[in-house]
Amino acid sequence: MAGETVQITGWVHEIRDLGGIVFVLIRDKNGITQLTAPSKKLSEEMMEDVRAARKETIVSVTGKVQESPKAPNGVEIIPDNIDIINVSQLPLPLDTTEKVDAEMDTRLDSRFMDLRKHDVSAIFKIKSQMLHTTRNYFYDHDFTEITTPKLVASATEGGTELFPITYFEKEAFLGQSPQLYKQMMMGTGLDRVFEIGQIFRAEEHDTLRHLNEALSIDAEMSFKSQQDAMDLLEDLIRNILADISDKCRGELEDLEHPLDVPSEPFPVVPYERVIDIVNSHDVEMNYGEDLNRAAEKVLGEEMGSYYFITEWPSAIKPFYVMPNVAEPEKSTAFDLMYRDLELSSGSQRVHDYETLYNQLEAKDLNPDSFEKYLEAFKYGMPPHSGWGMGADRLTMVLTGVKNIRETVLFPRDRRRLTP
Amino acid sequence: MAGETVQITGWVHEIRDLGGIVFVLIRDKNGITQLTAPSKKLSEEMMEDVRAARKETIVSVTGKVQESPKAPNGVEIIPDNIDIINVSQLPLPLDTTEKVDAEMDTRLDSRFMDLRKHDVSAIFKIKSQMLHTTRNYFYDHDFTEITTPKLVASATEGGTELFPITYFEKEAFLGQSPQLYKQMMMGTGLDRVFEIGQIFRAEEHDTLRHLNEALSIDAEMSFKSQQDAMDLLEDLIRNILADISDKCRGELEDLEHPLDVPSEPFPVVPYERVIDIVNSHDVEMNYGEDLNRAAEKVLGEEMGSYYFITEWPSAIKPFYVMPNVAEPEKSTAFDLMYRDLELSSGSQRVHDYETLYNQLEAKDLNPDSFEKYLEAFKYGMPPHSGWGMGADRLTMVLTGVKNIRETVLFPRDRRRLTP
Repeated sequence: MAGETVQITGWVHEIRDLGGIVFVLIRDKNGITQLTAPSKKLSEEMMEDVRAARKETIVSVTGKVQESPKAPNGVEIIPDNIDIINVSQLPLPLDTTEKVDAEMDTRLDSRFMDLRKHDVSAIFKIKSQMLHTTRNYFYDHDFTEITTPKLVASATEGGTELFPITYFEKEAFLGQSPQLYKQMMMGTGLDRVFEIGQIFRAEEHDTLRHLNEALSIDAEMSFKSQQDAMDLLEDLIRNILADISDKCRGELEDLEHPLDVPSEPFPVVPYERVIDIVNSHDVEMNYGEDLNRAAEKVLGEEMGSYYFITEWPSAIKPFYVMPNVAEPEKSTAFDLMYRDLELSSGSQRVHDYETLYNQLEAKDLNPDSFEKYLEAFKYGMPPHSGWGMGADRLTMVLTGVKNIRETVLFPRDRRRLTP
Repeated sequence: MAGETVQITGWVHEIRDLGGIVFVLIRDKNGITQLTAPSKKLSEEMMEDVRAARKETIVSVTGKVQESPKAPNGVEIIPDNIDIINVSQLPLPLDTTEKVDAEMDTRLDSRFMDLRKHDVSAIFKIKSQMLHTTRNYFYDHDFTEITTPKLVASATEGGTELFPITYFEKEAFLGQSPQLYKQMMMGTGLDRVFEIGQIFRAEEHDTLRHLNEALSIDAEMSFKSQQDAMDLLEDLIRNILADISDKCRGELEDLEHPLDVPSEPFPVVPYERVIDIVNSHDVEMNYGEDLNRAAEKVLGEEMGSYYFITEWPSAIKPFYVMPNVAEPEKSTAFDLMYRDLELSSGSQRVHDYETLYNQLEAKDLNPDSFEKYLEAFKYGMPPHSGWGMGADRLTMVLTGVKNIRETVLFPRDRRRLTP
């Protein structure tokens, strides 16, 4: 490139004025390029234009490329012309040169500027690649992409943690999960469906792992078992890890995050064994209890990477989960964990109308509220299995960040509704 | 295949009992297969099992393939074994053999069964392929996929047609459009972003072209002009048409819909020429007015296929639309139409803070309500352009259906919130 004339348009990342020479670092999506302006060689007007290029102003520079071993890419540009495209105000709400670590709230308040830091944009490039790989995996495996409604008339899974909406004259809610819709799709003959969409939960969390608006990856397959659903999930994760390793090398380096790619199949730990492990670390957990935070932590340390938990008690899993045929107090439910983080839940589902009706009643839910869902089980519903996975949580694992807010452009929690 | 033993699992599509011989048509995702049960050749138990296979019951059949020129695929299966997987109740809420044309409302009430008709599932296979092609097109053109919040604190574009939500102690709304978010992303350096997600509009429509929850395809590009945005849109549409023609031949046949693939570039019709065309058909339209339904219809007949409308008056376009530099009363806004249907709107956007602030005020909007959005324009916002396209409307064009409800699995309008 040396000797060639090029044009670079981007943001002024840094400006160092040494009097006789001015260095301007220009940032665009390909990285940082150094502009060198020696007053001996350039006109006074040009030097004035260069000095007008304040931090974060957008400039377009035409100039000659010159080798320069000390510059960011080993080259520098001597400007022939510099155009100011849009001037930035000062002071900046955030420092984009990463010398000052801002608070999460300050960063989220000015997210547009936070994303100018390459280790922040790297998270969203990895997330975009993860979604890309996930969709192509589904398409390659003969899945049909579906979109199910987010405006719903009643609770998806019977919980009370719903956001109410005023829908013209009626009350409606925001969908907690596409669960009931993707199951109804199994009664259509489409056989395999997936959806990647937002879910809304009015839970009063204040943790690093929960948001009130999250992105969910959902899959459902007809004529498939619990094992088939687990195999699909593990194979998808392996495809994602392979693609991120291959296509996001630079982003992983920016994040200083070596990706954990297990060579062995994901271990499968039955629920009763989980209790033993947790108890052996002096954390209390009894049969019939869900994992509490302390239990997740010791289990995560013991297991280290990805693993499945299976054979959950039917009593603590949702009404649509199929019990084990041989031991109905145990279910076909499984969770995929990464260390102490739950990534996905799935199961074989009940496909028999009577059983489903009875399981609703056994969970103190009113079958009348599920009338339209139940109808799909009366007229030829095939056996089916599936899972839902938190896309934001998976992004945490892929990028190594510890706060789920890092993985969402404009996160929503109880305290935050803007920008 | 003749002479081989096969297994078929699917729904009983039709059963014809001629006494000495019973024909059962079994439907799975590959199509329809005929089971032939002659009482001379089969045991009485087997004949009983075959006769128990009521319409829409799921059965799994093992048997020998035999040539049979009169059967659907030229073959029939003589059963060795028949398992009933899940019995269907009778009567059915809908006829899946397409001899009775049900009302739209009846069909939507039992959507799981409506989709068993191959000309209904064809719509959603085409929609899935359209989304697949669209995403791959964006990925191939270096776009980053983003997800922006659907829970928002205030109106996106200043309209009043918002669904209010109770968000813990606060009031919030459902997002009408990702417009302001995708524009803020142009201030991040990501340069090109796209989102495919749901939008919510509390409009009291009752037409064949509007829904209150719709799927929107949104694209935004930095350092790009109105023309660049139009070129991107036209090129994407051409890629979609090529892929649907190639990969959805069977579905287009099921729908008896020959796809309209224009060989010439999409015509570009300036707004003033639109008025002339409309007026020449004795429909009133004055400068400064939007297209009313009668105007859309005569224009659609005149134009016939895809076309752009450009040079819209700035006065009737949103505050974020960039005016033409030479003639500011005209804007850089464009609409993509297919006959009488608006598919997409786009423009170059204002990137200068002062201009944007003034345009908000000129449209009687309060800049304070747009504080966080406006902030992104203070610190180096590049020139940018983009568009939003209705994915459900595009599916209408691709499939030839006349009611937008046909293109959405579980449509939401003022009267419908279930299933």
